[in-house]
Amino acid sequence: MTRIAVDAMGGDNAPFEIVAGAVWGAAEYGVGLELVGKQDQIEQCLETIQKEGFLSDCGKANGKKRVKIDVKSLDIKITHASEIIEMGEAPGQAIRKKKNSSIVLTVNSVATGSSEALVAAGSTGAAMASSLFGLGRIQGIDRPAIAVTLPTMKKPIVVIDGGANSNCTPQMLKQFAIMGMTFSKNVLGIENPRVGVLNIGEEAGKGNELAQATYNLLEEEKEKFNFMGNVEGRELFLNHCDVVVCDGFVGNVVLKVTEGTSSLLFRMIKEQFKSDFLGMIIGMLAKPFMKRIYEKINYEEFGGCLLLGVKGITVISHGRSKAYAIKNAVRVAKEAVVTGVNSKISESLGN
Amino acid sequence: MTRIAVDAMGGDNAPFEIVAGAVWGAAEYGVGLELVGKQDQIEQCLETIQKEGFLSDCGKANGKKRVKIDVKSLDIKITHASEIIEMGEAPGQAIRKKKNSSIVLTVNSVATGSSEALVAAGSTGAAMASSLFGLGRIQGIDRPAIAVTLPTMKKPIVVIDGGANSNCTPQMLKQFAIMGMTFSKNVLGIENPRVGVLNIGEEAGKGNELAQATYNLLEEEKEKFNFMGNVEGRELFLNHCDVVVCDGFVGNVVLKVTEGTSSLLFRMIKEQFKSDFLGMIIGMLAKPFMKRIYEKINYEEFGGCLLLGVKGITVISHGRSKAYAIKNAVRVAKEAVVTGVNSKISESLGN
Repeated sequence: MTRIAVDAMGGDNAPFEIVAGAVWGAAEYGVGLELVGKQDQIEQCLETIQKEGFLSDCGKANGKKRVKIDVKSLDIKITHASEIIEMGEAPGQAIRKKKNSSIVLTVNSVATGSSEALVAAGSTGAAMASSLFGLGRIQGIDRPAIAVTLPTMKKPIVVIDGGANSNCTPQMLKQFAIMGMTFSKNVLGIENPRVGVLNIGEEAGKGNELAQATYNLLEEEKEKFNFMGNVEGRELFLNHCDVVVCDGFVGNVVLKVTEGTSSLLFRMIKEQFKSDFLGMIIGMLAKPFMKRIYEKINYEEFGGCLLLGVKGITVISHGRSKAYAIKNAVRVAKEAVVTGVNSKISESLGN
Repeated sequence: MTRIAVDAMGGDNAPFEIVAGAVWGAAEYGVGLELVGKQDQIEQCLETIQKEGFLSDCGKANGKKRVKIDVKSLDIKITHASEIIEMGEAPGQAIRKKKNSSIVLTVNSVATGSSEALVAAGSTGAAMASSLFGLGRIQGIDRPAIAVTLPTMKKPIVVIDGGANSNCTPQMLKQFAIMGMTFSKNVLGIENPRVGVLNIGEEAGKGNELAQATYNLLEEEKEKFNFMGNVEGRELFLNHCDVVVCDGFVGNVVLKVTEGTSSLLFRMIKEQFKSDFLGMIIGMLAKPFMKRIYEKINYEEFGGCLLLGVKGITVISHGRSKAYAIKNAVRVAKEAVVTGVNSKISESLGN
């Protein structure tokens, strides 16, 4: 049975929502768990869940439901971690100083083979640094990157890097392209994925130094990358390509602006329907339709993003994740184990 | 009477849609025009408009209408320009080589005082380079920047730079903050605007080198800038601050991802309502409500963005602008003349 290690102390809603999501995922996707964090707190969470279950959004649009899980029927291992890395700490320093922190020990459980994948909703920097340090890089990859999947009208598009590296070189973006293609092909099932460079104009020579140099690098091996050239922010959602490379600063901005825009629109729509009595009725009728859209784009459905390029599977979840998102992150982790995306990346690099 | 110079040859839909939008704006906002471009083509456009009017989106959501304008009643000057700068050309080179291009002569008309502001929908790079070269920089500003106004639930937020400078220094971003504050206060009417740095985390020390250094610069003069610290992409729409600074690469990505996300959502909603018969009926009932939202966020309503930091008023419109957007760009140009935003920027800098 696949075992997933979960940093029970990471994220705004730790430990309860994280533990709840983890056991929910374990029950739904048939995996074992290794919960890493303060043992007494984890045990207390499990006890409450066994006794009372927990209230959770089930996809926010479906409203809250009480979820009941028979915790005792699951294969759960608890690993005690006495320390926690907080959001504000400098990741590199923190993982060296706090060797008994929950994220370091969660990574350790994958490094030693006790678990096969990990889920982390705490500091992204700490999750990345500890994965890099604890699992090591895949040969040929300088820096791991976060692969973000965005919804479009047709096939989902991969934006890489979604926030692991704020300062990047063109060579790094070329490696992101290789990892993104492997992910797109093996996890999303897209044949011969097309790669683009995120830029602020279509023409060659547009954009900042990084985008220009990356364009030139990929253009040199146009066929290998099925290279489509530059892609603008607007075109991300139009299926002009399947994998878009950018530095982690820009990628993270893309991810969060997408989230912010859709949440603004849904709020505006809600408000607009409230503006008069007729609107309230039409709004009520329209609700189930809007729900279906909300589900298509809600980050909680995606659960988490894979950190690609390390020798192990690290799923990075949103810091604001609650149980439902963590449940889906467990699914993402399991899928990554099943598809063996890491060994495929290794193959793509000729290792 | 205020006269607005319009580059009639710039943009995907030039010259007809540009000329149509310009005369529409002139009629609606009571300004004179200087249309710059191929004289025969402009005259032909004016003739057609006088005779037949033109079909135009009136805010896309309101559908197309035939617009009738009595061109002869307007104060229109035509300035012949024999050359055009195309989208693919390197801006710096192009404006030096094509001294008789429509954009260079449009800028020239403001530089010589023939017009008081200009509207350009062609190559943003060329509009910026020719404005910089032809109008000169405001003292204390190293590089002009594009001020983009994004809608939120409450007050609009200014993102600066929206695409003029792909490679920036922290010092430039500090100047953008000054210009953005002046714009927010004088054009948007926001008292004591709050400034933030666009970043990928809230804590100091997050993000790339540029964001970190800019944070430190603004933090040093915290009170002057009413400095709110870092702002994430998601929070842009939550009114955590009024002015957000970033380099033009990131700002342009923000702008276009916002556009792309909202257009994706509207398409998804449309599609969803079409999924069954009941949906079609509810969709029809919901349409007027959706229209009102669409208008709130549609770039065509905004018309164009001001290029701040040059000694003159340059409104940069979307390359895809049609008549309705250009009409609104004329409004933006007139407002900038009336509010005297440039001299206010000059004052803020203690010139």
